[in-house]
This record gives sequence, structure tokens and C-alpha cells, in this order.
Amino acid sequence: MKARVYVSFKPTVLDPQGQTIRGALNGLGHASVADVRQGKFFDIQLKAGAAREEALREVQQIARDVLANPVIEDYHVEFLD
Amino acid sequence: MKARVYVSFKPTVLDPQGQTIRGALNGLGHASVADVRQGKFFDIQLKAGAAREEALREVQQIARDVLANPVIEDYHVEFLD
Repeated sequence: MKARVYVSFKPTVLDPQGQTIRGALNGLGHASVADVRQGKFFDIQLKAGAAREEALREVQQIARDVLANPVIEDYHVEFLD
Repeated sequence: MKARVYVSFKPTVLDPQGQTIRGALNGLGHASVADVRQGKFFDIQLKAGAAREEALREVQQIARDVLANPVIEDYHVEFLD
């Protein structure tokens, strides 16, 4: 079973890296780019055997406790298979 | 129009950051985690007006030239709206 965890800044949090990329793209002639925000994702391969519900609970716990900083980041879990 | 560009290492490229996360998760008791690979995504807000086809071409060019390193990374473009 393979899960993907998306982690991105909350919409209210400034994303200076995204702003830098937007500035660079505008400077390179991509004038239609209005905004860029960056995020991370983690593809987690789980050993076979666990039920999907149990796996979802575990991956959500991993996302909350390890992969994301819940103060400034949102996360979202998805199964790829 | 909003596009999302996913960038991740090619499957054949070693991902030391992902391996470190896997090691940490196993150490924290998440024994069911067999592998972790990390990637980035970029949410690109485009100014209204462009046709979808033209926008896709532009975002693919941005992904290839700026956001990803085609030697070691794969990218994938998706529209969110």
C-alpha cells in the first residue's frame, strides 16, 4: 500500500520561496504567472498486511507528528493504490 | 487558472532525505513504513485570459526549464481547476 502526504504552508502563512520563484519566472518572461506557492509531498510505502483504515490512521499520525508542523502547515493524506 | 507541478527524483536516483525519514519513522515505532521518497510541488496561479492549451505549454516549459532538473528529476503537470 502506498500513501502520499502533501504538506504545504497554511494559506495565511507567507511563502518567501514561492515569491522568489514567481519573481524569477516573471523576470524570465513568464508574465502570466501571478503567484507561486511551494509544498512538499512524501510517498510512503507501507508493508503489506495492514487494513486500509488502520494504515490511514497511522499515516495521518505520521503526517501530524513528523512530516508537518501543524502550527504553520496543512497536510493532506491520499492513497495511491 | 491554477496549475500544480509535481517534481520528484527519477525512480533510479537515490533519495537520502527520504531514507533518513524512513529511518526516523521506523525508530519512532512505525515499523510498517517500508520506504519513503520525498518530492516537491508548486502551485502556479496564472492570470486569467490564456487558453488552457497555451497555459499547459507554458507551465510545461516552466517545469522543464526552471522547476525540475531533467537529468535527475521527473515532473508532472496538473490543472487544479
